[in-house]
Amino acid sequence: MQIVITGGAGFLGQRLARSLLKQGNLPDRDGQLQTISKIILVDVVAANGFDDARIEQITGDITDSALLERVITTQTAAIFHLAAIVSGQAEADFDLGMRINLDASRLLLERCRACGHVPRVIFTSSVAVFGGVLPAVVQDHTALNPQSSYGTQKAIAELLLNDFSRKGFVDGRVLRLPTISVRPGKPNQAASSFASGIIREPLNGLPSVCPVAPNVRLWLLSPRKVIAALIHGYSLSADALGKSRTINLPGISVTVADMVAALERVAGKDVAARVEWKHDAGIDRIISSWPGAWDASRANALGFTGDRSFDDVIRAYIDDDLPAA
Amino acid sequence: MQIVITGGAGFLGQRLARSLLKQGNLPDRDGQLQTISKIILVDVVAANGFDDARIEQITGDITDSALLERVITTQTAAIFHLAAIVSGQAEADFDLGMRINLDASRLLLERCRACGHVPRVIFTSSVAVFGGVLPAVVQDHTALNPQSSYGTQKAIAELLLNDFSRKGFVDGRVLRLPTISVRPGKPNQAASSFASGIIREPLNGLPSVCPVAPNVRLWLLSPRKVIAALIHGYSLSADALGKSRTINLPGISVTVADMVAALERVAGKDVAARVEWKHDAGIDRIISSWPGAWDASRANALGFTGDRSFDDVIRAYIDDDLPAA
Repeated sequence: MQIVITGGAGFLGQRLARSLLKQGNLPDRDGQLQTISKIILVDVVAANGFDDARIEQITGDITDSALLERVITTQTAAIFHLAAIVSGQAEADFDLGMRINLDASRLLLERCRACGHVPRVIFTSSVAVFGGVLPAVVQDHTALNPQSSYGTQKAIAELLLNDFSRKGFVDGRVLRLPTISVRPGKPNQAASSFASGIIREPLNGLPSVCPVAPNVRLWLLSPRKVIAALIHGYSLSADALGKSRTINLPGISVTVADMVAALERVAGKDVAARVEWKHDAGIDRIISSWPGAWDASRANALGFTGDRSFDDVIRAYIDDDLPAA
Repeated sequence: MQIVITGGAGFLGQRLARSLLKQGNLPDRDGQLQTISKIILVDVVAANGFDDARIEQITGDITDSALLERVITTQTAAIFHLAAIVSGQAEADFDLGMRINLDASRLLLERCRACGHVPRVIFTSSVAVFGGVLPAVVQDHTALNPQSSYGTQKAIAELLLNDFSRKGFVDGRVLRLPTISVRPGKPNQAASSFASGIIREPLNGLPSVCPVAPNVRLWLLSPRKVIAALIHGYSLSADALGKSRTINLPGISVTVADMVAALERVAGKDVAARVEWKHDAGIDRIISSWPGAWDASRANALGFTGDRSFDDVIRAYIDDDLPAA
């Protein structure tokens, strides 16, 4: 079984690849476990630290059709399409966001269609597809009303994946992700970058700026649970999905104040004191347009699971990612 | 003031052009009435019967950037984008639907953006953006869940127009149209073609097939009201629209049996008897996925009006379109 991960050198892509290598197999469409023979990581740069014959790395531009033809073939059983321009960057560079978040998604779907073997395609979407006046808890039937170009591009990719699936061109699944926290590594250009930064930086002995008010409510999922959801999302049968391929993943709903309080409980007062509150109107506008919670009963019924508490999420970050002191 | 109508040789395009010629002016963005100096009709064919120096006809492919550059300039105050591949045809020819309903819409928006003067752009969308399990009356906040490629492409165009408007590239308005009835002329490849045919053909002495069950509920708007809505949609100030540029237009909710009963009331038993009931599973699947009604209170508050009764709609068709016996 061959698998493709776009954005394969990114944090989620690498982590997914490592989980799949460790697991060693995935079910095929008949539910029979098949050994994973190859995982192709596609990205603009190569990932470091993979020493496994099953990993192949291809670097290039995923809006390049020739590259997609090399990467996706009739041998490809699953494509995890994680490559994306994050929210803040897509807002700042509209054309780049359209090219990667929309055009690349469509080209990828068209490449799958041309192959003709109806591969499973897993897209990740986002809280950013919602916006405007929202109910306290977003429902499966709540209208998309993105207030950012990133959210618009993700919403369009969702619609495309659903229609390509309905037409039988691919067997698609869209996982709408809560904001991921605690993401390891450096801050990025996502508007939600602070949602990891205000935990990660203090735990690493660094100051961190929180650009939104303490009462802003976020809907969060940990990296561990995201990886599990991606693999579970692949594994579901098409029949289980019915007329919508889009699934709102479970999350936990916490305010930023709750997050800092959890940090204090887990790591102490001195660590939590490294968070500095400094309002940023641009970030606040985007973040405040996102839902603070959605109803995840469909995801729960399909067997997805979220985190138990934000304290647990912080502890998981410490276990998985915090460099030894 | 210069105006562009894509799909200008189509039934709605021609009728809109005639209404605008008769009206002679439109408000500019400051609300000042400006004389209409030119209306460019763009379509694959030219329209017949226009004898007015203000009409310019340009034929060609609206996915051709060179054509769009000729048609849309910094002199263009308004673009009514009516060109579309109808539902049945977009389902049968996926690539053609994507090219005209999606790519052309995006190219048109990009052309407006390149001009830099933020023209008003009026898109028409459709009941077909809804589908799946729906409430009896669709609300403004009901999620889009198109069950056809046409509905998917229209939903994507809506999202694009909203984001291009939010970014300040265009001043856009999406009018979600009910099914138009009674449309004059010949049957077309729209899945909803019968919704006009079962009234029009009997009134013209011809038999007509109804492919869906008598209890199927439709949400309808007459051609007169659609034209008025297009002009009103143009005329609204951007401030009135708030965070969503998409408006669900008023309609009337009738079953197919109601429509035939109205035909009998207006035109007699013999005319209504020309409707033949012959089920078509493909058409029924698409039509049954559409809402039979939606809440139009936002449109009403913005000053749009619908029809009073389907009897009136039939009488308007007889007045406007039925050839003299």
